[in-house]
Amino acid sequence: MRVDGRERNQLRPVHIETNYIKQPEGSVLISVGDTKVICAATIEDRVPPFMRGEGKGWITAEYAMLPRATEQRNIRESSKGKVSGRTMEIQRLIGRALRSVVTLDAIGERTVWIDCDVIQADGGTRTASITGAFVAMAIALHKLYEKKSIKTFPVSNFLAATSVGILSDKQAVLDLNYAEDSNAEVDMNIVMTGNGEFVELQGTGEESTFSYDQLQELIKVAQEGLLELFEYQKEALGDEIAALIKGSSVEKEEK
Amino acid sequence: MRVDGRERNQLRPVHIETNYIKQPEGSVLISVGDTKVICAATIEDRVPPFMRGEGKGWITAEYAMLPRATEQRNIRESSKGKVSGRTMEIQRLIGRALRSVVTLDAIGERTVWIDCDVIQADGGTRTASITGAFVAMAIALHKLYEKKSIKTFPVSNFLAATSVGILSDKQAVLDLNYAEDSNAEVDMNIVMTGNGEFVELQGTGEESTFSYDQLQELIKVAQEGLLELFEYQKEALGDEIAALIKGSSVEKEEK
Amino acid sequence: MRVDGRERNQLRPVHIETNYIKQPEGSVLISVGDTKVICAATIEDRVPPFMRGEGKGWITAEYAMLPRATEQRNIRESSKGKVSGRTMEIQRLIGRALRSVVTLDAIGERTVWIDCDVIQADGGTRTASITGAFVAMAIALHKLYEKKSIKTFPVSNFLAATSVGILSDKQAVLDLNYAEDSNAEVDMNIVMTGNGEFVELQGTGEESTFSYDQLQELIKVAQEGLLELFEYQKEALGDEIAALIKGSSVEKEEK
Amino acid sequence: MRVDGRERNQLRPVHIETNYIKQPEGSVLISVGDTKVICAATIEDRVPPFMRGEGKGWITAEYAMLPRATEQRNIRESSKGKVSGRTMEIQRLIGRALRSVVTLDAIGERTVWIDCDVIQADGGTRTASITGAFVAMAIALHKLYEKKSIKTFPVSNFLAATSVGILSDKQAVLDLNYAEDSNAEVDMNIVMTGNGEFVELQGTGEESTFSYDQLQELIKVAQEGLLELFEYQKEALGDEIAALIKGSSVEKEEK
Amino acid sequence: MRVDGRERNQLRPVHIETNYIKQPEGSVLISVGDTKVICAATIEDRVPPFMRGEGKGWITAEYAMLPRATEQRNIRESSKGKVSGRTMEIQRLIGRALRSVVTLDAIGERTVWIDCDVIQADGGTRTASITGAFVAMAIALHKLYEKKSIKTFPVSNFLAATSVGILSDKQAVLDLNYAEDSNAEVDMNIVMTGNGEFVELQGTGEESTFSYDQLQELIKVAQEGLLELFEYQKEALGDEIAALIKGSSVEKEEK
Amino acid sequence: MRVDGRERNQLRPVHIETNYIKQPEGSVLISVGDTKVICAATIEDRVPPFMRGEGKGWITAEYAMLPRATEQRNIRESSKGKVSGRTMEIQRLIGRALRSVVTLDAIGERTVWIDCDVIQADGGTRTASITGAFVAMAIALHKLYEKKSIKTFPVSNFLAATSVGILSDKQAVLDLNYAEDSNAEVDMNIVMTGNGEFVELQGTGEESTFSYDQLQELIKVAQEGLLELFEYQKEALGDEIAALIKGSSVEKEEK
Repeated sequence: MRVDGRERNQLRPVHIETNYIKQPEGSVLISVGDTKVICAATIEDRVPPFMRGEGKGWITAEYAMLPRATEQRNIRESSKGKVSGRTMEIQRLIGRALRSVVTLDAIGERTVWIDCDVIQADGGTRTASITGAFVAMAIALHKLYEKKSIKTFPVSNFLAATSVGILSDKQAVLDLNYAEDSNAEVDMNIVMTGNGEFVELQGTGEESTFSYDQLQELIKVAQEGLLELFEYQKEALGDEIAALIKGSSVEKEEK
Repeated sequence: MRVDGRERNQLRPVHIETNYIKQPEGSVLISVGDTKVICAATIEDRVPPFMRGEGKGWITAEYAMLPRATEQRNIRESSKGKVSGRTMEIQRLIGRALRSVVTLDAIGERTVWIDCDVIQADGGTRTASITGAFVAMAIALHKLYEKKSIKTFPVSNFLAATSVGILSDKQAVLDLNYAEDSNAEVDMNIVMTGNGEFVELQGTGEESTFSYDQLQELIKVAQEGLLELFEYQKEALGDEIAALIKGSSVEKEEK
Repeated sequence: MRVDGRERNQLRPVHIETNYIKQPEGSVLISVGDTKVICAATIEDRVPPFMRGEGKGWITAEYAMLPRATEQRNIRESSKGKVSGRTMEIQRLIGRALRSVVTLDAIGERTVWIDCDVIQADGGTRTASITGAFVAMAIALHKLYEKKSIKTFPVSNFLAATSVGILSDKQAVLDLNYAEDSNAEVDMNIVMTGNGEFVELQGTGEESTFSYDQLQELIKVAQEGLLELFEYQKEALGDEIAALIKGSSVEKEEK
Repeated sequence: MRVDGRERNQLRPVHIETNYIKQPEGSVLISVGDTKVICAATIEDRVPPFMRGEGKGWITAEYAMLPRATEQRNIRESSKGKVSGRTMEIQRLIGRALRSVVTLDAIGERTVWIDCDVIQADGGTRTASITGAFVAMAIALHKLYEKKSIKTFPVSNFLAATSVGILSDKQAVLDLNYAEDSNAEVDMNIVMTGNGEFVELQGTGEESTFSYDQLQELIKVAQEGLLELFEYQKEALGDEIAALIKGSSVEKEEK
Repeated sequence: MRVDGRERNQLRPVHIETNYIKQPEGSVLISVGDTKVICAATIEDRVPPFMRGEGKGWITAEYAMLPRATEQRNIRESSKGKVSGRTMEIQRLIGRALRSVVTLDAIGERTVWIDCDVIQADGGTRTASITGAFVAMAIALHKLYEKKSIKTFPVSNFLAATSVGILSDKQAVLDLNYAEDSNAEVDMNIVMTGNGEFVELQGTGEESTFSYDQLQELIKVAQEGLLELFEYQKEALGDEIAALIKGSSVEKEEK
Repeated sequence: MRVDGRERNQLRPVHIETNYIKQPEGSVLISVGDTKVICAATIEDRVPPFMRGEGKGWITAEYAMLPRATEQRNIRESSKGKVSGRTMEIQRLIGRALRSVVTLDAIGERTVWIDCDVIQADGGTRTASITGAFVAMAIALHKLYEKKSIKTFPVSNFLAATSVGILSDKQAVLDLNYAEDSNAEVDMNIVMTGNGEFVELQGTGEESTFSYDQLQELIKVAQEGLLELFEYQKEALGDEIAALIKGSSVEKEEK
């Protein structure tokens, strides 16, 4: 039995509130248990210098935590004057993951900026950010599509992420909260598409290791959780956008 | 008539939701119209180096905006590697204002960290931050008082802030939203205590000036709004804390 | 009686030495008691990127202190690698104040850089900087006008600044030196134009507050000092430039 | 057939030259094809502040490239004034990996600094760094053990890393060079211990994805290469140190 | 004949005004032609961490220019957030030079901070800084000696600096102004003690070279100028301090 | 007799290995005793902004040390976020020295980037860098010349550098190693061209001074060492490039 009474393969309660803030082209507040992240998607009508003239778009992400999202107040990165290695890893991961399900050629020379700001943290902030950011991004790109600024809907697949881990009893559990994460022997983040392909798989044994069999078990548990997360995303996006994503995916597979 | 239909001396709708995030000792989400700020108060059991050994406490504030709190995405200060002059001015103002109603000797060698994070901006973010931060701080200090970590309740007075300005028709209006603020000829922020004394008064005529008579009018309009804000604060804090603040204040006046 | 024997409403001795350094288009050494500031005005033939193509000019200011302008040596901001919040507040204030009396359209796409470098500090460095910078700027713009690079003299009014404060005896005094400033309960900086309008009014009660009546008294004392400062500026600038400023002002009022 | 004529499961030529530079406690020059990295291990007799008094040690790594290690000159991070996200990710990975095979309690309050400086880059610099750094670290810790500064040899297992990937023909290949890496659809880095357990497994599909079956194939190919790398390490370290590592490992398993 | 009508071996007019600013323990305004530098010496009662416990003192220097000391406004190093290579070279040179004539053991664990701030620049700012800083330092150390905080006067010799160069006519000239310096083929700065020994000799041929014979000629011309500079320093310091320096020097030579 | 048994006027063993790394246009590994530096030359087809449109080239240098090039590990400048004053001095020196023997007009609007990375340090790293960088630069420019991208070979002379110093026995020695350098009373770096002209001469007496006679002796000893270094350079470059340099020089003298 887990600290919060969940089964090994049970997600925490998930809520995705769309249009949480009014200014961005797309925004959500995603809660996964006590982890809460505001995800905002901004469409900018140009790409970074290194991509100009290629006729394709770019997706980039930034991630931050409010100082008191955590038990101990953490110092603002703006006060420190630099972004930590952990933050950089996470924002590179989010951007890379989202780019894997968007046809960049289809959005033209535009940048989609994703901002994930954690307002309350209880483990799994990076995976919640990816799951929420996907929804915010789809809403923002759908506005572009509705205005006919782009011809085809560029999101080719659903995309969500979760964490799995091995606790001291050597068994795999789904969606670790902060207390579990702190004591896990192995920690793995998995990003998957709606048709079950991996986008990222990052397993780490800090001062520990894991076997081939444990790897298989971790993946199996993650897959169950991810199927559930896709359902939350579909509900949040509504039938119209969900159908467009599915259609886009089909189209892609036929190519 | 104003752009949003308000009277000249009318505040926007104000909501103060206490304990909005679970980790900080005190927290609120304050909304003033479409301006929304998460204010968190953290009690740290030490003071900055320059104050050690004096037996008194310190209150300091930090202020930031999410990138898409605004119409145009603004670049994170952590990415720029430095905090802007505007941000520094605001956080210095918030800290100074709060210190004016707290008996620093009474909190011992502790620092109260105030974090004001604007999640949606529509003008008046610095004054909403002060009004909300006061409530978060009172809640946090009350916890310290309840645990008997401090002997007397150190908050001697209510404290709120609002903005007033002169629009192109040369008349004073209360609580400017972003559209009004952008076009105002004169902009003034006033921080006041519950017994009507000024703590800060900052009037600025960017590429414009204001007369002695206009100054009097601005102050009068601000005072009306501030009385209303004190009521919202009392309601958010509840009778027990409100009575402690009032008591503390009386005590101080008798000295 | 004050620590240096002055009356409550008496300025310290003021000297404005024009053309103090030879390279800038305009420069002064202003002394207000023992506070000494070198103010230099530079005309640059372009504006910041955000203003290009609008056909109007910009005025911006920088402020710094030599390390031993003060009793304790202060660390250079270049060594610290960043500009302090206090410095940023002051340089924003100086720039904003000067812009209020210059018709930016009349100077074309040019930037006036104001550099205020405090070589000796004894209180009131920001207000001395504004008073001195106005003179340096007027000299620099007059050169532009004489060379017929601009058609109308763009300075529409005199502009000076002073500080007032409330000492422990609860009464208002003019032009605080460092010893007075350190002990003042309330500190107010007032920037005013030659025709008596306010440009900036910044009153602060650090760990203290002030009443409506005290505010009126502070303003009255400041106004007396400012009238005197305008006389020093006129003398430093000479009749020709003083007449141009007066003329420009009249013109503006008639509009 | 691959661009350089290798088989799918064939490593590039590997050379590990020990004691390459004279000052560090342990150093190697590792070459994996045209990728060359100087790895140096430094023993410092203290730990970072957050670990003081716990009686255990720490291992931390830094990674850099010479500007012309690459085809295009890359700007020094010291000139840019900040370390890139990519560099941070790599140095965090190297440190984490090495810590997984060292009993930190056994080295006392000491820090092992690992410096990996790439002098020539042709793909796989992070995995070559880990493989080389392991050898440099083992040499440095062996000196400590020989001087009897520590009682037990703290390295519990061999540790090496390699990359695998999926090229456009959808098949898995081992040890990608730069040309292959640039065109790979999927890129995976695997860090493994001498007894076949995973320490890190990081698979990424940039603008692409991979299936469960492909994952299995990638792992299989990597395992073959890693077994070979352990042989190179044993040869470089010599029988005495290799036996100590094996012994240490046995001891650990028995616990 | 030179651009300003001087002879080849003629210094520009030199003025050293002592106690130019009131706060520092020692200060001068030195003018060498149109080059003007404020030099301030601060005595701090501790040494940098790397010297603690050795019972000896340290001398360190900082150098800066006001933005409009030069014909073109130069950007403040505090705004750029870093100190340029040129500034670092100069401040290292000033500190090193002054340390060569002070018995660091004799000043105890104290740091002498030297601040050289150029308020007007016309060539030779680093050599004027050294010549002026020597005087400011001697005054500051004399105060310490008079208060009997130190037993022996620690300055063992006079110290001054000048520049020499080779212009396009291939001949050596003394004390180059900015116009000459910009066109010189060879530029040499020489720091010398009162008894004719070299402390620093830095000759540079930017895009040019110089022969052994030219070197001899440059040194000869510099020596003439330096003898004159020692006279200006003696006059500025007065007989009492000059005698102490001479005495200290004699004492040292006898050792 | 010296610590390593050398004569006073004897260089340490010198080796120059050309094309040490494969990517740069020119590269060498230079060893001077235990001091080892990788020098790389990169040709970039543009010049810095301040030189655009002038039709001439530029040469600039960067210098760094691996953290364990030294006995004590030194912190990376990228981690500190800034380049030290010592590093800046050295890289400015290297660039300036190389520019003195290259006809910048002849290379067109190109920049030659020189990277000197010390992998092992035992004194004289800056002079070894110059001697090695000259060879790397000549190789890179020769490639340009062979491809007929430039018409004339732009290197007009050989260029090498060495250090000389005065040890505690007051006599001059050549090519100081780290142990000697740490105890030297006077330290001088001399950069000279193949026809015996000085390019840089930097003599420093840290807490010490030197006489005119000692200066002559230092120069004499340096000249002997430099003649030998030119031979090592010729051998490394081969007859063809050496002849081009000699020819270029003759041509220049005839002008």
